[in-house]
Amino acid sequence: MRMRFPCATLAMAAPSWEDSVKSLKGVILDMCGVLYDAGEDGGIPIPGSVEAVKRLRASHLKLRFCTNETQSTREKFVAKLTKMGFDISVSEVFSPAPAAVAILKERGLRPHLLVHDDVVPEFDSVEKTNPNCVVIGDAAEKFSYQNLNAAFRVLIGLEKPVLFSLGRGKYYKEDDGLNLDVGVYMKALEYACEIEAEVIGKPAPMFFQKVLDDMGIPSHEALMIGDDLVNDVGGAKECGMMGVQVRTGKYRPSDEKHPTVTADGYVANLAVAVDTILKLGGQ
Amino acid sequence: MRMRFPCATLAMAAPSWEDSVKSLKGVILDMCGVLYDAGEDGGIPIPGSVEAVKRLRASHLKLRFCTNETQSTREKFVAKLTKMGFDISVSEVFSPAPAAVAILKERGLRPHLLVHDDVVPEFDSVEKTNPNCVVIGDAAEKFSYQNLNAAFRVLIGLEKPVLFSLGRGKYYKEDDGLNLDVGVYMKALEYACEIEAEVIGKPAPMFFQKVLDDMGIPSHEALMIGDDLVNDVGGAKECGMMGVQVRTGKYRPSDEKHPTVTADGYVANLAVAVDTILKLGGQ
Repeated sequence: MRMRFPCATLAMAAPSWEDSVKSLKGVILDMCGVLYDAGEDGGIPIPGSVEAVKRLRASHLKLRFCTNETQSTREKFVAKLTKMGFDISVSEVFSPAPAAVAILKERGLRPHLLVHDDVVPEFDSVEKTNPNCVVIGDAAEKFSYQNLNAAFRVLIGLEKPVLFSLGRGKYYKEDDGLNLDVGVYMKALEYACEIEAEVIGKPAPMFFQKVLDDMGIPSHEALMIGDDLVNDVGGAKECGMMGVQVRTGKYRPSDEKHPTVTADGYVANLAVAVDTILKLGGQ
Repeated sequence: MRMRFPCATLAMAAPSWEDSVKSLKGVILDMCGVLYDAGEDGGIPIPGSVEAVKRLRASHLKLRFCTNETQSTREKFVAKLTKMGFDISVSEVFSPAPAAVAILKERGLRPHLLVHDDVVPEFDSVEKTNPNCVVIGDAAEKFSYQNLNAAFRVLIGLEKPVLFSLGRGKYYKEDDGLNLDVGVYMKALEYACEIEAEVIGKPAPMFFQKVLDDMGIPSHEALMIGDDLVNDVGGAKECGMMGVQVRTGKYRPSDEKHPTVTADGYVANLAVAVDTILKLGGQ
């Protein structure tokens, strides 16, 4: 164990995210809970967020969207957001299903799917007969006992069970309250089969890295803004990015006392975050 | 760390369970997978097991039954076994639900139940309004997304979430294949709420201890026979009992190479185990 001796810098306050904003080249936004709150009719924009996206887009900063949304294809998802007033194109959105398809093809794997009906079309180009792995997404009501059991039987029947999970979120907020997310069912199958799932989506470092590659900037010049402390902020910080949590969506006050993940900043909502970025970033 | 030096006993073979049978005073039998295989019409006896129970009962050995069955009341469960030809009385059967009721009353807890419809009557005497804990059992088809979410919302709404799980089994065998057990859903809720469940049933040491207390014998004079290596054999051995695994029910050959649990013996089925016990035990 190496000991560090006190030095002058210890007496200084830790730099806040505001101090680092000047060097920013790009911003990645989580979507549900940052741009909008989910709901039965597709959801409603969080006040100020439509305008905030517009202002970011008009700035010098690169802008991408990174979501663990697996309840629809990217096309349908973006169409929903466009209807809410957001100016977002499909190519700017990074979601787990297309990333999973790429991995399945690369490794010659044929999935048994336990995913939401609306995301199934993303897997159209993948061979699915005689499955040799399982892919689970946020299947919501499709997470019945029968369906989870069917996925389990595929896994337990394989010599070396391979499970992909599109995210590892615990729960998310809809207008009627908190709902269980895919990570919970990932843990269930991991325990049943004594395996560890491969996570595709946030907080997997490879997932964030692909977004950075697409923006063409190094991680320390990028900022992730999300409502999920562990998956958005924690994942981004693991990659060397800055991570700021908004106090909207699934945010809970206890997040600010989390034992392992501390955000670089906590802000009321996206509009306030963008105000700060554009003011301090000189735009 | 204490070092032990080699001594003469190291050269001797480890004593097998057959060597210890002479000092036996009592036998505890797991039920599903040892006495019978579950199935849609209640299940069918495993060949030789009805006769094996009769022979044990006619011996000098004390006999109890220990099950994590939570899909019916003890009364209905024993009636099902009686119909199959087994001679078993309700008072000899130890199952998690009555143990849970005792704990809930002792601690003044009001449960939200996520259990099989047929075991609900066991909880008739427990106050359930305004719940301040959750009890999950093997709810099978009742483990819908909606029901698991409802249990989650109760837990996440409590200042200090308390979750009781009636067992921690991974899966069990029915005539159409392996089915997920309560432990899988326990893990799901543990992950969602960042808590650890209190397990009532096998392999919890307190559960085995209650059976030993009822028999009035010390643990080293008791033998547990089960098809579940971790929950039956591992749990019993933790308590100081001998533990033998039958190669029926959910047994899988890989159990004999399990990294942490090694049975004192592996036998083809209950009939063979009882043959050995009665032959070597001098009956």
